Amino acid sequence: MMSKIPVAVLAATGSVGQRFVQLLDNHPWFEVVVLTGSDRTAGQTYGQSCHWILPGPMPEWAAGLEVKPSEPGAVGNLPLVFSGLPASIAREVEPQFAQAGAAVCSNASAYRRDPDVPILLPEVNADHAGIIPLQRQRRGWTGCIVTNPNCTSTGLTVALKALQARFGLRKVFAVSLQALSGAGYPGVASLDIIDNVIPYIGDEEDKIEWETRKMLGKFNGAQLELASFTVSAHANRVAVSDGHTICCSVELEEKASPEEAQSALQDYQPPQLARGLPSTPQPVIEIRSEPDRPQPRLDRNTGKGMTTVVGRLRPDPLFDLKMVVLSHNTIRGAAGGAIYNGELLAAMELLPK
Amino acid sequence: MMSKIPVAVLAATGSVGQRFVQLLDNHPWFEVVVLTGSDRTAGQTYGQSCHWILPGPMPEWAAGLEVKPSEPGAVGNLPLVFSGLPASIAREVEPQFAQAGAAVCSNASAYRRDPDVPILLPEVNADHAGIIPLQRQRRGWTGCIVTNPNCTSTGLTVALKALQARFGLRKVFAVSLQALSGAGYPGVASLDIIDNVIPYIGDEEDKIEWETRKMLGKFNGAQLELASFTVSAHANRVAVSDGHTICCSVELEEKASPEEAQSALQDYQPPQLARGLPSTPQPVIEIRSEPDRPQPRLDRNTGKGMTTVVGRLRPDPLFDLKMVVLSHNTIRGAAGGAIYNGELLAAMELLPK
Amino acid sequence: MMSKIPVAVLAATGSVGQRFVQLLDNHPWFEVVVLTGSDRTAGQTYGQSCHWILPGPMPEWAAGLEVKPSEPGAVGNLPLVFSGLPASIAREVEPQFAQAGAAVCSNASAYRRDPDVPILLPEVNADHAGIIPLQRQRRGWTGCIVTNPNCTSTGLTVALKALQARFGLRKVFAVSLQALSGAGYPGVASLDIIDNVIPYIGDEEDKIEWETRKMLGKFNGAQLELASFTVSAHANRVAVSDGHTICCSVELEEKASPEEAQSALQDYQPPQLARGLPSTPQPVIEIRSEPDRPQPRLDRNTGKGMTTVVGRLRPDPLFDLKMVVLSHNTIRGAAGGAIYNGELLAAMELLPK
Amino acid sequence: MMSKIPVAVLAATGSVGQRFVQLLDNHPWFEVVVLTGSDRTAGQTYGQSCHWILPGPMPEWAAGLEVKPSEPGAVGNLPLVFSGLPASIAREVEPQFAQAGAAVCSNASAYRRDPDVPILLPEVNADHAGIIPLQRQRRGWTGCIVTNPNCTSTGLTVALKALQARFGLRKVFAVSLQALSGAGYPGVASLDIIDNVIPYIGDEEDKIEWETRKMLGKFNGAQLELASFTVSAHANRVAVSDGHTICCSVELEEKASPEEAQSALQDYQPPQLARGLPSTPQPVIEIRSEPDRPQPRLDRNTGKGMTTVVGRLRPDPLFDLKMVVLSHNTIRGAAGGAIYNGELLAAMELLPK
Repeated sequence: MMSKIPVAVLAATGSVGQRFVQLLDNHPWFEVVVLTGSDRTAGQTYGQSCHWILPGPMPEWAAGLEVKPSEPGAVGNLPLVFSGLPASIAREVEPQFAQAGAAVCSNASAYRRDPDVPILLPEVNADHAGIIPLQRQRRGWTGCIVTNPNCTSTGLTVALKALQARFGLRKVFAVSLQALSGAGYPGVASLDIIDNVIPYIGDEEDKIEWETRKMLGKFNGAQLELASFTVSAHANRVAVSDGHTICCSVELEEKASPEEAQSALQDYQPPQLARGLPSTPQPVIEIRSEPDRPQPRLDRNTGKGMTTVVGRLRPDPLFDLKMVVLSHNTIRGAAGGAIYNGELLAAMELLPK
Repeated sequence: MMSKIPVAVLAATGSVGQRFVQLLDNHPWFEVVVLTGSDRTAGQTYGQSCHWILPGPMPEWAAGLEVKPSEPGAVGNLPLVFSGLPASIAREVEPQFAQAGAAVCSNASAYRRDPDVPILLPEVNADHAGIIPLQRQRRGWTGCIVTNPNCTSTGLTVALKALQARFGLRKVFAVSLQALSGAGYPGVASLDIIDNVIPYIGDEEDKIEWETRKMLGKFNGAQLELASFTVSAHANRVAVSDGHTICCSVELEEKASPEEAQSALQDYQPPQLARGLPSTPQPVIEIRSEPDRPQPRLDRNTGKGMTTVVGRLRPDPLFDLKMVVLSHNTIRGAAGGAIYNGELLAAMELLPK
Repeated sequence: MMSKIPVAVLAATGSVGQRFVQLLDNHPWFEVVVLTGSDRTAGQTYGQSCHWILPGPMPEWAAGLEVKPSEPGAVGNLPLVFSGLPASIAREVEPQFAQAGAAVCSNASAYRRDPDVPILLPEVNADHAGIIPLQRQRRGWTGCIVTNPNCTSTGLTVALKALQARFGLRKVFAVSLQALSGAGYPGVASLDIIDNVIPYIGDEEDKIEWETRKMLGKFNGAQLELASFTVSAHANRVAVSDGHTICCSVELEEKASPEEAQSALQDYQPPQLARGLPSTPQPVIEIRSEPDRPQPRLDRNTGKGMTTVVGRLRPDPLFDLKMVVLSHNTIRGAAGGAIYNGELLAAMELLPK
Repeated sequence: MMSKIPVAVLAATGSVGQRFVQLLDNHPWFEVVVLTGSDRTAGQTYGQSCHWILPGPMPEWAAGLEVKPSEPGAVGNLPLVFSGLPASIAREVEPQFAQAGAAVCSNASAYRRDPDVPILLPEVNADHAGIIPLQRQRRGWTGCIVTNPNCTSTGLTVALKALQARFGLRKVFAVSLQALSGAGYPGVASLDIIDNVIPYIGDEEDKIEWETRKMLGKFNGAQLELASFTVSAHANRVAVSDGHTICCSVELEEKASPEEAQSALQDYQPPQLARGLPSTPQPVIEIRSEPDRPQPRLDRNTGKGMTTVVGRLRPDPLFDLKMVVLSHNTIRGAAGGAIYNGELLAAMELLPK
């Protein structure tokens, strides 16, 4: 049996960081050897410094690790690091790791708009990883940066991909009902959300409208082209712990009935490269046929939280199709997605030696 | 001083019925003389039979009234009755009251689609009450039936009216986040909504897509014409007690910037007939300029729950305009709206003598 | 390999019934061969008639079973039935099954107060099963009825047992914060619990005050004696899906410090008969040492929902000890507890041949 | 007509500060002339610097006031200041105001345990204000400091007072279910309380156990004596916006039935000094006779949030009496209580000239 690939988790004490630690527990390919935190926590053990907020206990191996500063010098030479850093710090620190030779699988938005940085969902656009050699060449890095999309773009893009592949896409309306964990911890104040809805999440609508088009665009061997459809997004925060729900209306290039759309979604197969990895969703898309599903509390953990769940396929008076999409925002939409990206890089032999 | 008009509340023990009782307490024009309930409750006092679920005490005059069956014979000859009956019973009972000489202001959906029954929002389409003489003539009634719209159509239609009046309307995309009280009592099970969203409300989307067009259409002296714009609606239930939030994108006939749209909304004046009534919203539309408003917990009681609150006016990549609309579903969207309709009928001298 | 024991679940479509089905999926000893429901559902498949409200899918074998009426004639000759029947129906039906030769593991309160019916928590009072031969003899049954306690009594009694065994018990104050699932489905109306607490649960306080004393009393070979300590209980409903929290103050016979009490709880070993069964909690009691634990969302699934979690051991100014006890009310406190009882009967060879 | 007394609100941008501003709007005796905030907000207008989180709009007069630093020099010479400062800052700043000649009505815990500082609930212990001249003399102040109790002690003490006055008190067991607003803003993270209970609030139990005894003790002309009964408290945070619920068991010196206790509570009259002030609760105590009341969402605003609501009076197997007490924590238990204290000082002519 091969030895595991040693990895680090940056910003491991935060809410995304905790999910990384939980999901990397007993990972078949990766072994966490370093956890980093803020200057305030560095030097303590993870068990001491981390206010663990996930159901289920903190893994014992993690509790005993000493928290290091989020710097290449402190972390050491590792081929793969998972980053739960906030965007402002990621902007500065992630290139240092890429420069030092690590493949950085980042959950931050800092580099998503850079032309040579892919936003990867392996089951959607694994081929976009093909830009990594160009990224290395341009930037003089031995490592690299790949990102996963915003947690709301994630499920939406998976569902849209299946429709795009079969019918083509013209227009998308998307209104999100987003979970609290998407705002990190402590995140949303309880007084702001009890008996309430907040119809606003800073910068979120712009991300949904843009990132979907980058991911569903083409890598032409030299660059990533934006897809030409248009998205209009409204983002809302609701009193749900985990699981983003998206109400979506879609205009297709080629007309399709709800039944045809459903079979396109149900039959969708990920690219060959993205199949059979440890985190490949089983299934990639699940269709719920009840009139009132998917629902976050009941469906968010489908496929260990990696599956995109779609329901309520029905005709739309303005466009072609209405549907509801659900995705687990801190698993598929954050830590689990970044790990899946790391697996893809490993399988494509894109990790630094 | 004139004596007050005696009125009845049908289905007064239900959740909408309780709001009628609460809002009619000390009404300047109307005096509740009869409350009706199901056969199970008839004969008891209202205080005994009604499980009061509103904050604030049950009015004392109501507690002492004997609950009557919901039949004209038991209620007696009254010029005006407010109906909180469920649609299936309303279908049978409301015409009996109209036949017996009462103007029925109904909250039920039973007759909203009848060509000679207006769906009234006085601040929007007070002139639609002009069809009542034709309704009486056709049906041989001395009374009449007027309805208020579905609680989600209500706020949406008020906001759309202001835009339609200034710019014309082409397309509307509307996604609701609806409060629990919209489902009546006991309504939604707590286990179904804790840490959850239900992306489905039976028949609701169809009502939103159709009722808005009837209310924003024209009364041409002989009939009510549907407006020609198209609406696509998605309806969701969220963990909010009162106050429906609607995320809305609008395509106008004549282009308008968010600023122009905002002034159209802000300047909107109700028809002359609908002004200065006891329940006329003050103001009809309130604009919130904060980036994260309106919110149901903070804004639902604006204008005593009768005002439509609009915010987040911004450009839409597909249509012209995005906005968020909030309306109190059991006040403006149900009991308060029906009372406002009753006031309009009184002011227009359309109540039976 | 031995063949599995065929079992039935009575009232399988209800909320407790669904937990039975979920927990009996792949049970190493038992195989569900019959599911029963109300007259309304009988004749349909379980998949058709059951509105499944648990996260995770309905097991496929269950979906295909035809729902039978809750009568021995319809169920057939089975050695073991699990009953999720409401108390009023249980009172009539459970003796029919016991008469017909089944061991009935009941979740209902109907027979808990009968002197020859044990309330069993195997990790607490497995020896109380010794009364079954007397029950059979007195009633002329070949089957029998055993009950599990009320869901709030469950965790409280496990924690009290560990203290009683080491120090003796004099007085107990217990205030519960109970989950919504304890009220069944649809149960508590969402409008009653949003932004609210209901400081009342019908008959619950009396059950907590009495059942704990029966379970912690002695079986003297002829009868079950009530323990002599006194309990005062206050029961509250809170907005939690699963997991009952109990704030508890205890006066002991022999003084003990919080540290001594903690080691009594931590070291507690179940009776020999109750160890090593498929549902034996691992561990029986878990101590949380953080100042703010246990919490239902974080700790309810400890030991697959079978473990009693205790924290906040501290001195009490009136009695000796304050503590917080948490127990999963529909797993340890209902279906899981009844299954554990069934396993105990099987291990003690008390199932009818 | 007399001119109003000019007052300041210290820490006016916080959650308690906002309640002060809301409750002092149109106060018949007091006029707010200064609002203070942190160094970060000082210099801006209140409208700019305050993230208003209360339903209903910010009063216009407040929106236009410039926020000042919380120092006597910046506030100027005022006879009365209301303090919503956190304890750590209150400890330093409040004596400066008292020294400078202001009567400080403080919501902070900083000075509650000082022997010459009263914890005042006018309807309970108005006579404790008699220690103010001694406080002035000892400390050389022309102003003074009076405090209101912790928000949980408040309602509990009012209810206990009525029982103490008629029957005497021996032992009190109190378990709180406390609202989110008690933790300030942003306070409790939404992820910590959704589908959850937190059975811990730092230092709260100790405050409840001690403050009740100071308030229910005697002022003997020279000092405040602690009452001799004993309290055991457990404090919990629940998903309620406003309104603390307390489950309480009481042992009396003289036995009383629930009916006798109910009439003692119902008949309770505040001391002569505390009657007829603008904030005197109407009534002081309200009894709810339904089996499931009081409930925070339905009853917290009784008597404009100043009334203590009591229900579920019933026998206790260990002590004499069980009951449930509800009090609005940010009105009666914080800002409203401090204002009531200010009114008492004014009525007793204890405000500095």
